[in-house]
Amino acid sequence: MSHGRPVRRRGRPASAERNAGEPATRDRILGSARTEFAERGYDKASIRAIARGAGVDSALVHHYFGTKEQVFAAAVQGAFAPAMGIPDLLLSGDREEWGERLVGYIFKIWEDAVTRDPLLAIMRSAVSNETAAAIFRGLISRNLLERVSAGLDRPDAALRVELALAQLVGTAMLRYVIKVEPIASAPAEELIPRLAPVVQRHLTG
Amino acid sequence: MSHGRPVRRRGRPASAERNAGEPATRDRILGSARTEFAERGYDKASIRAIARGAGVDSALVHHYFGTKEQVFAAAVQGAFAPAMGIPDLLLSGDREEWGERLVGYIFKIWEDAVTRDPLLAIMRSAVSNETAAAIFRGLISRNLLERVSAGLDRPDAALRVELALAQLVGTAMLRYVIKVEPIASAPAEELIPRLAPVVQRHLTG
Repeated sequence: MSHGRPVRRRGRPASAERNAGEPATRDRILGSARTEFAERGYDKASIRAIARGAGVDSALVHHYFGTKEQVFAAAVQGAFAPAMGIPDLLLSGDREEWGERLVGYIFKIWEDAVTRDPLLAIMRSAVSNETAAAIFRGLISRNLLERVSAGLDRPDAALRVELALAQLVGTAMLRYVIKVEPIASAPAEELIPRLAPVVQRHLTG
Repeated sequence: MSHGRPVRRRGRPASAERNAGEPATRDRILGSARTEFAERGYDKASIRAIARGAGVDSALVHHYFGTKEQVFAAAVQGAFAPAMGIPDLLLSGDREEWGERLVGYIFKIWEDAVTRDPLLAIMRSAVSNETAAAIFRGLISRNLLERVSAGLDRPDAALRVELALAQLVGTAMLRYVIKVEPIASAPAEELIPRLAPVVQRHLTG
């Protein structure tokens, strides 16, 4: 909290304050939402439990985000934020290094629990619920596929990106979710050079 | 049911009869279990609901399979049965055609809802629950990795198989679970030739 801020009023924040976003509270709610969605699945998750986990009142969750579906969408968007850098990463620089750069970038997101856990939480929800899957699907389409496809400039660009993504999503599943050995414990430095040429091949081969 | 069979007694079947397996009832219970695990997740799934779905008494489910964990293990084993052909498929025939043969075989399993749906149901449970993931993990290790690795005859064989598997698991996720376009609607004939060389590269490249 910054110094010199006026004493907080109770009740509904004024519009400007809402838009300023109360980052700490919002983030706490989103963090709690991701935990709740991951642990109980989309259907079973409740606004009440999300509020409890964030130490706030249910009304405040509704106030900031709206319905459960909207809380989920906001949580996905947040979890997905690190991946939003992918299109820019790909669309600049030498095409022949796309595979290496994309895979290196993804592993940076994955190998840090702070950025990985929200992604896994969202993936878990999307796998078990159609509403969650639809939100996830829309986000992948709009923020990843459309932008990368535009830069790839081939008629089958979206399919190429998806096949590359499939390799990476499947790797995450086996390594971080199912945790089957040896891929679960293999150092990133051993996996990156095995994955990069395959991703490169999907994108430009 | 075969002709000339004695009139069924009520209650616990005799041992020989249990071992004979009552295939119709067992299969109905396993089918109901897969639906229940897929729809409600491992934690929320109940023996009572599985029994109801199969039109039998809960006691019969316990009698045939035991605990919820054991019902799940049996359902996984059944769902996984078509994939059990993979090691034999791979370990015979020309190594240079492994990618093509494996991918073609997998698509045969996937493109038929009868063999695909149980696999997806199991994948959904494994993603959302650690007990389920452990059972799935053990099955992949014992029935797939160990056997294929033995045939691949390289120190990194298991990792190679897993990276190939990652490409296929990720493809299934995007195509059948998240259902993102265009990969969701692309004909198998378009996907197989794009996946085969990548799988081949992982296995033998």
